[in-house]
Amino acid sequence: MPDMPAFKTIALIGRHNSPDIGGAVLAMAHFLERQGCTVLVERRTAESCGLPPPPAHADYAEIGARADLAVVLGGDGSMLTAARSLAAKRIPLVGVNQGRLGFLTDIAAREMTETLGQILAGGYSLEERTMLAADVRRGDAVAFSTLALNDAVVNKGAVGRLIEFHVHIDGEFVYDLRSDGLIVTTPTGSTAYSLSSNGPILEPRVPAFALVPISPHTLSNRPVAVSDRSVIEITLRHSIDARVHFDGQPQFDLHDGDRVTIRRAAETTILVHPPGYSYYGMLREKLHWAGGAL
Amino acid sequence: MPDMPAFKTIALIGRHNSPDIGGAVLAMAHFLERQGCTVLVERRTAESCGLPPPPAHADYAEIGARADLAVVLGGDGSMLTAARSLAAKRIPLVGVNQGRLGFLTDIAAREMTETLGQILAGGYSLEERTMLAADVRRGDAVAFSTLALNDAVVNKGAVGRLIEFHVHIDGEFVYDLRSDGLIVTTPTGSTAYSLSSNGPILEPRVPAFALVPISPHTLSNRPVAVSDRSVIEITLRHSIDARVHFDGQPQFDLHDGDRVTIRRAAETTILVHPPGYSYYGMLREKLHWAGGAL
Amino acid sequence: MPDMPAFKTIALIGRHNSPDIGGAVLAMAHFLERQGCTVLVERRTAESCGLPPPPAHADYAEIGARADLAVVLGGDGSMLTAARSLAAKRIPLVGVNQGRLGFLTDIAAREMTETLGQILAGGYSLEERTMLAADVRRGDAVAFSTLALNDAVVNKGAVGRLIEFHVHIDGEFVYDLRSDGLIVTTPTGSTAYSLSSNGPILEPRVPAFALVPISPHTLSNRPVAVSDRSVIEITLRHSIDARVHFDGQPQFDLHDGDRVTIRRAAETTILVHPPGYSYYGMLREKLHWAGGAL
Amino acid sequence: MPDMPAFKTIALIGRHNSPDIGGAVLAMAHFLERQGCTVLVERRTAESCGLPPPPAHADYAEIGARADLAVVLGGDGSMLTAARSLAAKRIPLVGVNQGRLGFLTDIAAREMTETLGQILAGGYSLEERTMLAADVRRGDAVAFSTLALNDAVVNKGAVGRLIEFHVHIDGEFVYDLRSDGLIVTTPTGSTAYSLSSNGPILEPRVPAFALVPISPHTLSNRPVAVSDRSVIEITLRHSIDARVHFDGQPQFDLHDGDRVTIRRAAETTILVHPPGYSYYGMLREKLHWAGGAL
Repeated sequence: MPDMPAFKTIALIGRHNSPDIGGAVLAMAHFLERQGCTVLVERRTAESCGLPPPPAHADYAEIGARADLAVVLGGDGSMLTAARSLAAKRIPLVGVNQGRLGFLTDIAAREMTETLGQILAGGYSLEERTMLAADVRRGDAVAFSTLALNDAVVNKGAVGRLIEFHVHIDGEFVYDLRSDGLIVTTPTGSTAYSLSSNGPILEPRVPAFALVPISPHTLSNRPVAVSDRSVIEITLRHSIDARVHFDGQPQFDLHDGDRVTIRRAAETTILVHPPGYSYYGMLREKLHWAGGAL
Repeated sequence: MPDMPAFKTIALIGRHNSPDIGGAVLAMAHFLERQGCTVLVERRTAESCGLPPPPAHADYAEIGARADLAVVLGGDGSMLTAARSLAAKRIPLVGVNQGRLGFLTDIAAREMTETLGQILAGGYSLEERTMLAADVRRGDAVAFSTLALNDAVVNKGAVGRLIEFHVHIDGEFVYDLRSDGLIVTTPTGSTAYSLSSNGPILEPRVPAFALVPISPHTLSNRPVAVSDRSVIEITLRHSIDARVHFDGQPQFDLHDGDRVTIRRAAETTILVHPPGYSYYGMLREKLHWAGGAL
Repeated sequence: MPDMPAFKTIALIGRHNSPDIGGAVLAMAHFLERQGCTVLVERRTAESCGLPPPPAHADYAEIGARADLAVVLGGDGSMLTAARSLAAKRIPLVGVNQGRLGFLTDIAAREMTETLGQILAGGYSLEERTMLAADVRRGDAVAFSTLALNDAVVNKGAVGRLIEFHVHIDGEFVYDLRSDGLIVTTPTGSTAYSLSSNGPILEPRVPAFALVPISPHTLSNRPVAVSDRSVIEITLRHSIDARVHFDGQPQFDLHDGDRVTIRRAAETTILVHPPGYSYYGMLREKLHWAGGAL
Repeated sequence: MPDMPAFKTIALIGRHNSPDIGGAVLAMAHFLERQGCTVLVERRTAESCGLPPPPAHADYAEIGARADLAVVLGGDGSMLTAARSLAAKRIPLVGVNQGRLGFLTDIAAREMTETLGQILAGGYSLEERTMLAADVRRGDAVAFSTLALNDAVVNKGAVGRLIEFHVHIDGEFVYDLRSDGLIVTTPTGSTAYSLSSNGPILEPRVPAFALVPISPHTLSNRPVAVSDRSVIEITLRHSIDARVHFDGQPQFDLHDGDRVTIRRAAETTILVHPPGYSYYGMLREKLHWAGGAL
């Protein structure tokens, strides 16, 4: 776990192509400047919101070099993009959700300056989240590489036929799966797409990935959690129409014989949680566990 | 239920693009001719198998006009194609599976002539199976129409993002679903793709369709069985990348606002079952219910 | 569907052993008397609420003989008890839920007099719901018989070991199931216990029962919907600790070899729905389909 | 991982109350003696098989004190009993299944002497499996304690009504669950009862327990995997008819307010695997992943 840093230079990153969050970005920038912080507005955020240059605009490289904290204004998708972009630089992230809370965005919009004030005053906790490092190999070449905070999803493509692939873990054959696809999820991703496909929730401290089949042809093919020290290799077979997605965002078209290799990344995502954050409290709210008749 | 016909003119329909079944088609043709039947080999079957013209080649229109029975050599997919093509003419179908038995192909290849002999001698039962009639409406126009024996599947498309749609039944709003898709299945289709998405098995006599969400965002969105007298309307919303498939075969790209309307077809598929056929026996075998440790 | 009756004599039935609903029972009784109705308070309801004799107390036999309508104040469990008790007499039922709405109790407590006023004025719809008739046979004798509106559940008993039984439908062998139990549910029961065990929702017009295994040993043992014209027979085997429950209420201890026979009852439950009732609207509310993040 | 021991003194433990395995026990005893081993036959095994005293009979205490290896002849249940009894003494276990292979019994009966010969010759691998230590607390007293290799299951009791309990992890409130029960499973137990309740498979190296609700009233209550460093506390509420089972064997009746506390045991089970053992190979066989149509 990193030392508890003081947050002096703060980047603001808004949801992609969302001019409507310009007001919130500006309000947050002014608030942070009044608190004595240096503010960097991510360049595309500034452009899509039509913000004039000061506060200083910055691209991800500059944010990675200078910021002590990145505040993301958007939803879980915005957090995922920021996480992949900034993980190598270990910039802590905190999310302000424009609507309701998200699984990753801890702060409601209406409380954003109050809560940021508490965080600047040292009232926060840090949490490191495991990321995936994935390669797609075609023959001897690496055709694609990326990080992911949530998941890697090998999925049927546009034609819509079920696909087939071999799965190996640490070189050992696991199964030959015929299905709509396979999700390999981190604990962070276990409450996202994986959950809709009956994957288990992995508490963030569990050092595991879950392999979750999507509509498997064999009904006994159930989700399997494996050590996050494992190397997972998925080899496409007899299938010409498949694709791999990462965090629901970057994607790559697969050819027959392509191998998707997934392992724990050296990089992690550092989340900043406001005072009173509770993982289970968040689950209870988001999943409607708190009560109700059903 | 139709009268018990005598099968004099028999069509042979092979799996699409499968030259390897030429031997089986020829053997079956010769067997049937020796039994005094007139044999029509479906034209593309004959061509892909390289069969010389006699026995007589016939297209689906001629088969529909002349045949008393169609024998399908292939798998469940071949049966589905034949069912959609011949339903309007009420030609009974029986399937010979080239490998193991299928859900729809009752006869194993190694027993095909013996079993066909029993059927020609009157040892068979007939079963009518409900079909779907589906339209896609764009604005005021019907953009696509088809029959289906198994299912209509509205699915996310090539981009892979979840899609959203409204579902109405008999004009009443049911739900707004965000998911990878929605399966509307007949009893026949309930043991196919739907089962992999946790849909219920509908015994063929149950006059119902099941609506089975695929990876729904809301975890309490469970499969719903509705009367097969219902008109089901699925209206795509806020989604630009969706597609509807029928029996895993014909498909149509959907635009935002398109409406897929599904109702029970006037047509049915008439299955010919060999002596000793049992629906539950077939389920026990195909689903490995018959025993084993797990 | 029955004729639309006028409701002159109205029975009030409260949740079992719930003295706290005395106020609601009394308020309802006074309201109905002011509307010119004759009110019969079910005897045990009156006793547990400590109500003085007038309005007239009545046992179920008298209610069955005299009432035009029974108003149940309680939850779904109270409705089930009333339904089994009054089905033979075809007394329509309407439910007032003391808390939130239930699947069967359409009227919220705070709107009860207003809504009952609408119903008395003719603003209602009637719906018949299928019931189960179940027998337990031991050797040649019928050891137990009951009606059920929701479900018959064969379940492991106090020892907690999985149980085994044969299932036949219309005399045909279906499967040999090893599991914690098996639910046979009507459409009405499909949103109750069955739903927690991954059973499908059966819209009330679907003439089917669902067979839903509870924690089955064989993972491919999925829920099956069968025609409600079927006779379902469950024969306990190699099991000494099993029990059958009906609507979660009456129960009977099973011995090895006992047969539970389930068929559609001649009796039905007649539900009175207030104006604006919608089955799918009720599902959306109870199952939190209406929206939210997940 | 322990050193690779030489197996000189070997205990034989048979399935409880199974006189029919006497022949296998005797054959194994003679085989081991011919290999120069000292054989101890577990006392109740010897008695139920009617074996005369030599080879030496021994109770579990003596086995724990003297044996280098325990060979269990029976099923997974027999392995669980032996594991709980011998864990404190770190006696390695290997299982001979009388029928097909089990999840824990690696050796088929027909190959038992050949495979034991290989193991005695050093052809084996060792694997440590995590166990649970569970206490039931009533007021300030510990009312019951046990180890478990598979699972702790809090379950409804004889009356069959759903039960309610609070779950805390490391003192933090997780949820208030209304259900038929809750399974807390180790990786070893994740392929047993938990799997029938839709729990995830936890590969044995994953340091986690899974909390798997049984027929939960709230449909979004999904399985959660938590770190095996966690202390899980389950507090029964408003429920008078509940029971906790361990490995499907020892059990304890719970009162309202009782707390079941579950943590990783200091003890582990040491499994001896024969040459060629593969965890995923075992899963493929037991779960019918290896192929077939569905």
